Amino acid sequence: MEHLLSKRITNQRSSRIRELLRVTEQPGMLSMAGGLPAPATFPTELLAAAFARATTRQGPTGPVAWQYGPTEGTARLRQQVAAEHAMPLEQVLVTTGSQQSLDLLARVLCDDGDVIAVEHPTYLGALQAFHLAGATVIGVPGDECGLDTAALEAELRRGLRPKAVYVVVNFHNPTGTTLSADRRRHLVQLADRYDFLVIEDDPYGALRFAGVAPASMGGPAAPVVRLGTASKVLAPGLRVGWMSGPQPVIAAAVRAKQAVDLHTSSVAQLIVAEARAEVAAFGAHLDAARAHYAAQAASLADAVQRHLPGATFARADGGMFLWVDLGVPTEPLLAAAVDRGVAFVPGEAFSAPGADPATVATRARLSFATLTPCELDEATSRLAAAIAAGG
Amino acid sequence: MEHLLSKRITNQRSSRIRELLRVTEQPGMLSMAGGLPAPATFPTELLAAAFARATTRQGPTGPVAWQYGPTEGTARLRQQVAAEHAMPLEQVLVTTGSQQSLDLLARVLCDDGDVIAVEHPTYLGALQAFHLAGATVIGVPGDECGLDTAALEAELRRGLRPKAVYVVVNFHNPTGTTLSADRRRHLVQLADRYDFLVIEDDPYGALRFAGVAPASMGGPAAPVVRLGTASKVLAPGLRVGWMSGPQPVIAAAVRAKQAVDLHTSSVAQLIVAEARAEVAAFGAHLDAARAHYAAQAASLADAVQRHLPGATFARADGGMFLWVDLGVPTEPLLAAAVDRGVAFVPGEAFSAPGADPATVATRARLSFATLTPCELDEATSRLAAAIAAGG
Repeated sequence: MEHLLSKRITNQRSSRIRELLRVTEQPGMLSMAGGLPAPATFPTELLAAAFARATTRQGPTGPVAWQYGPTEGTARLRQQVAAEHAMPLEQVLVTTGSQQSLDLLARVLCDDGDVIAVEHPTYLGALQAFHLAGATVIGVPGDECGLDTAALEAELRRGLRPKAVYVVVNFHNPTGTTLSADRRRHLVQLADRYDFLVIEDDPYGALRFAGVAPASMGGPAAPVVRLGTASKVLAPGLRVGWMSGPQPVIAAAVRAKQAVDLHTSSVAQLIVAEARAEVAAFGAHLDAARAHYAAQAASLADAVQRHLPGATFARADGGMFLWVDLGVPTEPLLAAAVDRGVAFVPGEAFSAPGADPATVATRARLSFATLTPCELDEATSRLAAAIAAGG
Repeated sequence: MEHLLSKRITNQRSSRIRELLRVTEQPGMLSMAGGLPAPATFPTELLAAAFARATTRQGPTGPVAWQYGPTEGTARLRQQVAAEHAMPLEQVLVTTGSQQSLDLLARVLCDDGDVIAVEHPTYLGALQAFHLAGATVIGVPGDECGLDTAALEAELRRGLRPKAVYVVVNFHNPTGTTLSADRRRHLVQLADRYDFLVIEDDPYGALRFAGVAPASMGGPAAPVVRLGTASKVLAPGLRVGWMSGPQPVIAAAVRAKQAVDLHTSSVAQLIVAEARAEVAAFGAHLDAARAHYAAQAASLADAVQRHLPGATFARADGGMFLWVDLGVPTEPLLAAAVDRGVAFVPGEAFSAPGADPATVATRARLSFATLTPCELDEATSRLAAAIAAGG
């Protein structure tokens, strides 16, 4: 049956993170490799109460939670997103998680060979979605202030003509950086001048526990599609995300989504809407989640400084990851680390096509989300032992 | 921003059913146009109890309902489907409704221009999914026994080389026909001989209230992908479906789904699995749903015979629709019908590319699912008046 498969899927390889996660399910493994949020932050009582309210909602065609709904999303959740993004309702679409937002955008923007530019390194799931949709992905370097918009401008002057530029704006996965306000302005100027769309992905922004967030680039007339998700602020198992952007792009994404899955789970959408509508309880939950991640981030940073004095990294103001330069190539280190019962994701896994993999070769993405402080200390100690054994 | 859109989305038009459904939301409209199941059949208590159990399930990474899960689907639901389809677990994938199964299959099978053959007329959502994925769709005639496999064989002999042939096997949407056992055997023989995959879509099979179902074409070694869904037997708002088929096809669909939405809503999957696991309660619910639809189908059939004595149709053994030949062109009739407060879907809406639209020109798809018996009588009376006024 392999011979019946399309070229586009034959060329799609399974993600390295995915293969890694299989290995890290072994008992005793201390994994800093995953991208899972801390289950301790899931507001299970808030979610159960939200379900109870969700199932009382009646629409003209029956219970809203159980009946087919509009492709654009359940009115209640769309209205919340429209208010939060300061966008008209018709410029908002609910999706089956941000991963679907990326797939829909790639499909409505790109015919085979059209270009999407991404920061190097970048979120692996974005690379997968863009490739599957037939887009050509080009990496542009970044630094501690996020995507290097001057480097992007130089590429544009040399003739690069992307349909879209993809950035994770706050607590970038994997680098943890936040795109600076100056660069955000510059990027929007470039989008206007060179006629591309900015895809502003922001799964982690609400998990800021220090510092001040630069403003979103989105707005009713901006050349920007802004992505949000319930995955990191409520629970990823819901698979509920959303996007807002220029009306023609959103309308096209609605048409595509109609063919792709009709609409996102009504009951999951309503759980999100009802949970967010409990403003005090939702706010208290977010505060608790931020405090949890702040403590976790400090624990891992302290452990890295203790056990890996040669490593360099920036302390996190939010998100779930430290992007640590271990000073040795991390791809060859992984097997030895796994042998010692610790897992991480080597920098190379996030490398964007066309970019220099050497810039990420000694990096490791360490998640501080799910291990306890004691486990983070032990995991880092094992990592140090693996490096020492290999050095 | 329109100029940034891909050709594939620019060529995708919004569904006529969708536009129709907008019109039919007017107050006082009696709509037989929609494809919504009867909300009276939603087992709300069973679903609430299933949610309560679902949220107690703990996995190695936290609460299964709320945490990220495997792309293949939650183990509990996959195991149920594997047992029902008599397939190995690794040949089963949970999807975000059958609509996503169609999208994934088109994407893993078809590069631009590859052919999928469909019965004419056919399910509109399938046409949309196949077109968006770049497939070329070819219609093959059907009759009261379903897809005309002799006509298909003639096309294959003339050189047609489809990647897949798509059939709705039980209570076809819109025609209501069930593919006969002989033709099922013939279709699988053709698939083996001409090297294509059969896509066996079966959303309505569990809603059979009369007659005996021919066996599924699926099986561990069959060239068949079998689609199922919770939409018609539990609730469509869950957006949970599944498919089973040849291992390389399912593995490819898993790789695509990873890029498309990571996985289907965990909480929705678990609600389905827990509800189905309550065997007695789930069985009683299905019996009640079948009895409900049997009475509804009889009400509509009686009303059509009463008010439209010139119309011809087959009584339904299941599903949600009658496919009525009104003896006049139904596309021009629709506006007059809507003016009189009744809606239906004209046969032309389901026309497959390359097939003869004349064969569906006088047909109307009438849903008996959601109106009360009195409303079905009144709706049919209005339809008769619209025909009389136009004749």
